Amino acid sequence: MKIIRTINEMTNKIKELSHETIGFVATMGFLHEGHLSLVRKAKEENDLVVMSIFVNPLQFGPNEDFEEYPRNEEQDTDIAEKAGIDVLFMPTVKEMYPEELAIKMTIEKGTDVLCGRSRPGHFDGVGTVLTKLFHIIEPNYAYFGLKDAQQFAIVHNLVRQLNFPLQVVGLPTIREADGLAKSSRNVNLSDRERAEAKQLYKSLQYAQKLLVDGIKNPDIIKAEVQKMLQKETNGIIDYIEILSFPNLGQISTIKEQIIIAVAVQFEQARLIDNILLQADGTKIDRL
Amino acid sequence: MKIIRTINEMTNKIKELSHETIGFVATMGFLHEGHLSLVRKAKEENDLVVMSIFVNPLQFGPNEDFEEYPRNEEQDTDIAEKAGIDVLFMPTVKEMYPEELAIKMTIEKGTDVLCGRSRPGHFDGVGTVLTKLFHIIEPNYAYFGLKDAQQFAIVHNLVRQLNFPLQVVGLPTIREADGLAKSSRNVNLSDRERAEAKQLYKSLQYAQKLLVDGIKNPDIIKAEVQKMLQKETNGIIDYIEILSFPNLGQISTIKEQIIIAVAVQFEQARLIDNILLQADGTKIDRL
Repeated sequence: MKIIRTINEMTNKIKELSHETIGFVATMGFLHEGHLSLVRKAKEENDLVVMSIFVNPLQFGPNEDFEEYPRNEEQDTDIAEKAGIDVLFMPTVKEMYPEELAIKMTIEKGTDVLCGRSRPGHFDGVGTVLTKLFHIIEPNYAYFGLKDAQQFAIVHNLVRQLNFPLQVVGLPTIREADGLAKSSRNVNLSDRERAEAKQLYKSLQYAQKLLVDGIKNPDIIKAEVQKMLQKETNGIIDYIEILSFPNLGQISTIKEQIIIAVAVQFEQARLIDNILLQADGTKIDRL
Repeated sequence: MKIIRTINEMTNKIKELSHETIGFVATMGFLHEGHLSLVRKAKEENDLVVMSIFVNPLQFGPNEDFEEYPRNEEQDTDIAEKAGIDVLFMPTVKEMYPEELAIKMTIEKGTDVLCGRSRPGHFDGVGTVLTKLFHIIEPNYAYFGLKDAQQFAIVHNLVRQLNFPLQVVGLPTIREADGLAKSSRNVNLSDRERAEAKQLYKSLQYAQKLLVDGIKNPDIIKAEVQKMLQKETNGIIDYIEILSFPNLGQISTIKEQIIIAVAVQFEQARLIDNILLQADGTKIDRL
């Protein structure tokens, strides 16, 4: 595995390595099973796989945890190497942002819903850093987890609307045996909370069943999900939303591809989960 | 010459045509000698040359002349073919903007000087359309005239800061025998104005001489240029500016690459011109 820290070296390396297609996995490091599932798919589908590890200051708000965000370069390098990454791109902040940007990218749609509502400017930073990384690495396919469905949707729309010459691939959320979405935050759950946490996905599966049964009114489905989560968990519901996908628009009746997403605040951990469905309730596993 | 009107066809054509490098000339059509000088250089330096003709609504203000902007597809096609263009990309507005953009690009530096001051939002539209065109055509080199030095500077900074995998090339202003910069607006000058108009470039050459002679204070040089233009023309001076280049920042003393730019309003035509200089006064002809 080649480790690269400068943009110049990276663009030269891409030119130098012969390849049919480049698969790209953008990360902020502290690699876990979620990242590795993206890498596995990237390796299956491409002959050159590049991973970036870059904690992007632009996507953290002034009161967010940029400084405290967990970093472990040695462990990440080890994991990336074992996963079969060909090129690991780990630039410094100074390398990526040597000067104040003269251009600002603002995501104007799909940001004031789901988790974006509480993180103004977050997706502007995501869009900017991905624009730079896509230009530096020139991947044919970029892999993202559908667990962060809003991020996937916004990146997907960015790439489509600005005609980036690549395809954004969304891959299914990796789950524990009982359905709980894997997350580094799960370790912060108490035993009782951990037992309850599986209800997030159960409530989404119940919502799917309602849709399959013919209930097309999102308000009715949301009310049922809310009832279930309130009954089965002690967490505080942050949101239950049903939106068109990937446009993330409000809908009054379900007649297109949708996302049903929930966020529940437990004592020490805020959990999110979602399910992507066709209008008839068929589950969508890859986008 | 292949004429292409859809994005899909364009990206496919690029993949299909074998080439070492792609040279790209972005235009709004109504082709003239200025465009052709860019094409000639693109042909010299690349084995595949693509031109786009697209009157981009995004870069026109609400009170500007998008509808009235001159168009002549038949004549342009003829000129492009004769000039040796390989692929002419002429998309419709609907093809380039099928829906409202979810992402807004805002140029935050270098826009409130020179001609940009009177065209708020103009360069945001330029940046957005060029981002799309660069992604669709994937050129190695994109050629722009230095007559519109502000546009060159902003595109140059956009490409550098967002790491587009291409090089922006700035080529010298094409001039009449007496030094007047070629422009489709020159035909609107009266005979007396046409005779006076050469003074724009003469005043810039005089400014260069002052710098070569060791005058590093931009205010002194601007005052001399102003005196000369007021004495030798009946036009109204819109601006005389000396800025760092390509950053377009204000400077108090000349110690880096600069632009000296003037705009003069005549009865029926507003003329602009500029000169790019090293700190020692050496003229810069290509960037």
